[in-house]
Amino acid sequence: MASASSITIRRARRDDVPVIVGMLADDRLGSARERIEDPLPQSYFAAFEKVDRDPNFKLVVAEDVDGAVVGCLQLCILPGISSQGASRGLIEDVRVATHCRSRGIGEQMVQWAMTEARTNGCILVELLTHHTRVDAQRFYERLGFQRSHVGMTIRF
Amino acid sequence: MASASSITIRRARRDDVPVIVGMLADDRLGSARERIEDPLPQSYFAAFEKVDRDPNFKLVVAEDVDGAVVGCLQLCILPGISSQGASRGLIEDVRVATHCRSRGIGEQMVQWAMTEARTNGCILVELLTHHTRVDAQRFYERLGFQRSHVGMTIRF
Repeated sequence: MASASSITIRRARRDDVPVIVGMLADDRLGSARERIEDPLPQSYFAAFEKVDRDPNFKLVVAEDVDGAVVGCLQLCILPGISSQGASRGLIEDVRVATHCRSRGIGEQMVQWAMTEARTNGCILVELLTHHTRVDAQRFYERLGFQRSHVGMTIRF
Repeated sequence: MASASSITIRRARRDDVPVIVGMLADDRLGSARERIEDPLPQSYFAAFEKVDRDPNFKLVVAEDVDGAVVGCLQLCILPGISSQGASRGLIEDVRVATHCRSRGIGEQMVQWAMTEARTNGCILVELLTHHTRVDAQRFYERLGFQRSHVGMTIRF
């Protein structure tokens, strides 16, 4: 099996959307939220356009040596007044294709996001992980993240 | 003392920045992070410009009947592929001036943010609150938020 170092992290393109949605749906929490249809609901492509046209949002994919997309991550660069006007990075929607787990692809993507955030003037990177995603929390702690906050949500 | 209903929530202007920074600094966690100087460090105004020019970021203030700014809140509208391409709202930097607490101003600002998020197509609003801010967590729970996630951060 190829190692993580063989993957390339690149900006997502419109034609990556179906594979990204597939990875988002292939997940205990995500399966109920997505609609895998052919053709894919137009709302996914509309969302891609919104992300793609704002330079503060960076949706990337991990591409394997054979060109297959095997991971995704979205980084938001959030400007704000606090902390002397420093920006913050927010990581969302991190997924690695099931058959490519344990190759360090997630780590490589998150390291990419941290470097990108720092390059864009962020003093910290933050994220919310569902309280039941214990493995994810261990993963982020291993990369240096702290369980410093409570993540609160309200759904409409 | 005036009630919450007497306040107006409006978009922040450049000349609100010093008062906003004052509120951010007047806080147990914020005091070490800000620099209250006259003139205020330029980085604060540069950050304001970044927030102000991107329609996905909405920095608002609560203005009292006498025109004084007594609260602030930043809402970020985050487009994303997941959940069928729905956007999410992220609330950050909520502050109410010390002498105006317990008037329901924070609640009015957060309710504004929820309405604004919904109007902008968000299916949820999320936020991180420091694990030591127990009062804030109770406040958000009272407004319907759930402690569904772990908020993780890494500082550079």
